[in-house]
Amino acid sequence: MNNIEKKIGIIGGGQLGKMMILEAKRLGFYVTTLDPTFDCPSHSISDEHIVADFHDKNAIFELAQKSDVITYEFEHINVQALSELEEQGKIIYPSVKSLRTIQNKYSQKQALAEKGILVPRFGLVCKAEDIYKYGEKFGFPLMLKTCKDGYDGKGNYLIKTKEMVQAGFDALYKNNELMVEEFISFEKEISILATRGINKEIVIYPVGHNIHENSILDTTIVPAGISAQLEENAKEIGKQVMNVFDGVGTFCVEMFVKDANTIYVNEVAPRPHNSGHYTIEGCRVNQFENHIRAVVGLPLGDTSLICPVVMINLLGQEKNGKTKVIGVEEAYKITGVNVHVYGKKESKIARKMGHFTVTGNSAEEALDKANKVRELVKIIGCPVKIAQDGK
Amino acid sequence: MNNIEKKIGIIGGGQLGKMMILEAKRLGFYVTTLDPTFDCPSHSISDEHIVADFHDKNAIFELAQKSDVITYEFEHINVQALSELEEQGKIIYPSVKSLRTIQNKYSQKQALAEKGILVPRFGLVCKAEDIYKYGEKFGFPLMLKTCKDGYDGKGNYLIKTKEMVQAGFDALYKNNELMVEEFISFEKEISILATRGINKEIVIYPVGHNIHENSILDTTIVPAGISAQLEENAKEIGKQVMNVFDGVGTFCVEMFVKDANTIYVNEVAPRPHNSGHYTIEGCRVNQFENHIRAVVGLPLGDTSLICPVVMINLLGQEKNGKTKVIGVEEAYKITGVNVHVYGKKESKIARKMGHFTVTGNSAEEALDKANKVRELVKIIGCPVKIAQDGK
Repeated sequence: MNNIEKKIGIIGGGQLGKMMILEAKRLGFYVTTLDPTFDCPSHSISDEHIVADFHDKNAIFELAQKSDVITYEFEHINVQALSELEEQGKIIYPSVKSLRTIQNKYSQKQALAEKGILVPRFGLVCKAEDIYKYGEKFGFPLMLKTCKDGYDGKGNYLIKTKEMVQAGFDALYKNNELMVEEFISFEKEISILATRGINKEIVIYPVGHNIHENSILDTTIVPAGISAQLEENAKEIGKQVMNVFDGVGTFCVEMFVKDANTIYVNEVAPRPHNSGHYTIEGCRVNQFENHIRAVVGLPLGDTSLICPVVMINLLGQEKNGKTKVIGVEEAYKITGVNVHVYGKKESKIARKMGHFTVTGNSAEEALDKANKVRELVKIIGCPVKIAQDGK
Repeated sequence: MNNIEKKIGIIGGGQLGKMMILEAKRLGFYVTTLDPTFDCPSHSISDEHIVADFHDKNAIFELAQKSDVITYEFEHINVQALSELEEQGKIIYPSVKSLRTIQNKYSQKQALAEKGILVPRFGLVCKAEDIYKYGEKFGFPLMLKTCKDGYDGKGNYLIKTKEMVQAGFDALYKNNELMVEEFISFEKEISILATRGINKEIVIYPVGHNIHENSILDTTIVPAGISAQLEENAKEIGKQVMNVFDGVGTFCVEMFVKDANTIYVNEVAPRPHNSGHYTIEGCRVNQFENHIRAVVGLPLGDTSLICPVVMINLLGQEKNGKTKVIGVEEAYKITGVNVHVYGKKESKIARKMGHFTVTGNSAEEALDKANKVRELVKIIGCPVKIAQDGK
C-alpha cells in the first residue's frame, strides 16, 4: 500500500491527538480517533470518532479495523489488546514492545541502564522497608513513584527524610508496583524530542529548557541556554534512547543536567510531548508532522530551529466550569505570539487547556514577551449557563 | 462577544476553506462549512457541514444562524442573500460591498481606475462591434472576459487579431456582461497577498513570482526576483487596493510587471489565494491564519518570510477517476519538501488536487529541488473499483 493512503487510528483525542490530526490532514490522511469524551479536542477534526474507554478491547479492535496503522497520544492504554492486534499482523507504532517497556517506569529505567545510559539510581519497592534500604544506599531525599500510570507529578511522592517513608508508601501503595529513584539535584531540566522512522532514520529537535510548576510543565525555552557540548551530548543520548526502545514515531526524553559534564535521563514518553509544542512555530517540520510521517513510513522532515521560541502552558484557572479564553486580542498586539486553544469544553483548575508560543530574536527577548503574554491570556472556568428551556 | 468565541461560517469547502479551518482549529474556533459536495476537502474537519448549493438562500441563512461571522473561500456566490443578511446586522467579511464590486471584473477595474491605480485599459462589451472599436483604440491582441464567474482562465478569450473578434464574442456571449482589456505584454506576473483588519490595519506578504500554464497557476517563486523598488511598489499597490475595496480579510492582488517602473493590477480576489500557499511553510503567520484573525477581529500576525520557497500546483493527471497520490515517499527524501493533498475523492484532469512547497537557501535552489519533486509527485485518477457486492 502507498504510504500516503494509509488510514491512521489514534488512541486518545486530547490536545496531542488533535495536533497530530492537524498535520495528518494537510497530507490528506483519513483519521479515526478513539476517546471516551464525545467532544474531546480531536472530535471535530477526525473523520471518525469511536467514543469508548481507552481500555475497551472491542473498541480498540474496531479502531484497528478502520485503520492501517494505529498510534496513540498517551501511554496508559490497553497494551494487552494492542499486543493481540500486533500478533494478528496489525501495524502499531510505537510498537507494543516499546510501549510495554516504557509504560512501566521500572522496566523503562532498567532498559536504559542496561544499555549504559545514565539514569538516577533506582530500585523496586514492595514494602516500606525497601525504601529505608534504598535511603541508606542512595541517601535522602528519594523520589517514590508508581511504576505505571503516573503523569504530571501524579504518582510521584518526594520522600525528603527517613521520617516520611511510611507516609509516602501509604500514599502511593495500593497493591501496585512502586519504585524509588535517587533524587538528582539538577542545574536544569531539559528535554529532547526525537523522531525515528521505520527504517531506523532518526531526527533530533533542538534541546528545550523546561521549567515545571507544581510538577506540571510551565515553560519551555529554546535554545536551552546550555553549552554546545551539552546540547550535543543531550542529542546523542536522545538517539541512543530511540535505539534502546526501537522507537518508531516521535518520543520525548526528559533529562536532568547535573553539571557541565553530566546528564541523567529522567523519563521517556513514547509520543509527542508538551515540551515539544514549541516545534509548531519554532521548527521547520514539527514533532506532530514527523510523528505522522514516521508511523506511516515516510521520510522524516527537517527539525531545524527557525528562531528562538518560548512555550508557556495555559492551565485552567480560578474555578472549574465552562471554558472561557480571555486576553488573546491584547496578546496578539505583540509580534510573534501564537495561542493554541485545545477546545476542551470544561475548564478545570490546573487542567491543560491550551498553550502559547512566542518567537523572538533571542530566547531572552522571547521570554520577556512571553511573560507579558502570561499576564494577558488566561483560560478560566465560568458557571455553566442553563438555557431557559432547561436544555 | 470575545473574539475568540466567535463561531465562523465559511461558504465553500474546497482547499482554501480546508486551509482556513486548519488554522481556525488551532485557536479553537467552531466552524461550519457550506458546500454542495458531501465529502469536500473541508468536510472532515468542520464542526458542521451544510450540504447545499452556494446559491441556496435558505442554506446561507442557516449558515448565518450557526455563525457569528461569515466568510467565503471563493467569490462566485449568492451576493443577494448575503446582502439581506448584512442588512439584518449579520457580520460578513469581506463585506458584501467589497464582494459585489470585485465579483464583477468590470466594476472591479472601474473602482481601481477611479482611485488612480494603474490597470490595463478596459471597456464594456455589449456586441461584437464594441470589440472592433476597442481594437482600434487599444490595438490587438485584446483579452475578452466575462465580467463574472471566470476563474483559472475560464471565461477568458484572447483575441489575437481583428479576424478573431466574432469567434471570441460568440464563444463567451450568452446574454452575459463581457469586457475587453488591453493586452499587456509583461516581463513577469507577480502577486501580493495582503490582509486587512476590521480596524484597517494592513499586513503585506512578500511578492511572489507566478508562472501560469494553460491559464492555471503552476508555480509561485518567493522572493520574486524583482528589484527592491518594484517589491516596494507592488506592496504599496497592495495596500492601496485593500483600501479601495475596504477589504477585511486576506486578498490577493495579481499584477503584471511591464518594465522596471510599471506595474499593472490584473485581478483582485477577495480571499486567500493559490499564489499564497507558499505562506504556510514560508512565512511566520500564513495567509489563512491572518484571514481568520481579520474576520474575527484579532490583531494580524507577522508576514515575514522565513526562507526562500517555491510552490507548485498538483493538478489531476492522466485520466479522471479515484484520486491516487504517488511519489511522496521519494519526494520526502529531499529536505524542505511539504506536500499538501486536498482530499478530493475524484481526480480530474487539470483539477487542483494538491500542491507542494520546497524551501531552500535561495529561490534558485528551491526551484531546482521543486523541479525534481515535480517529476516524482503526481496525482492521478484511477478507475474506480467496484466492490464485489456492487456497493
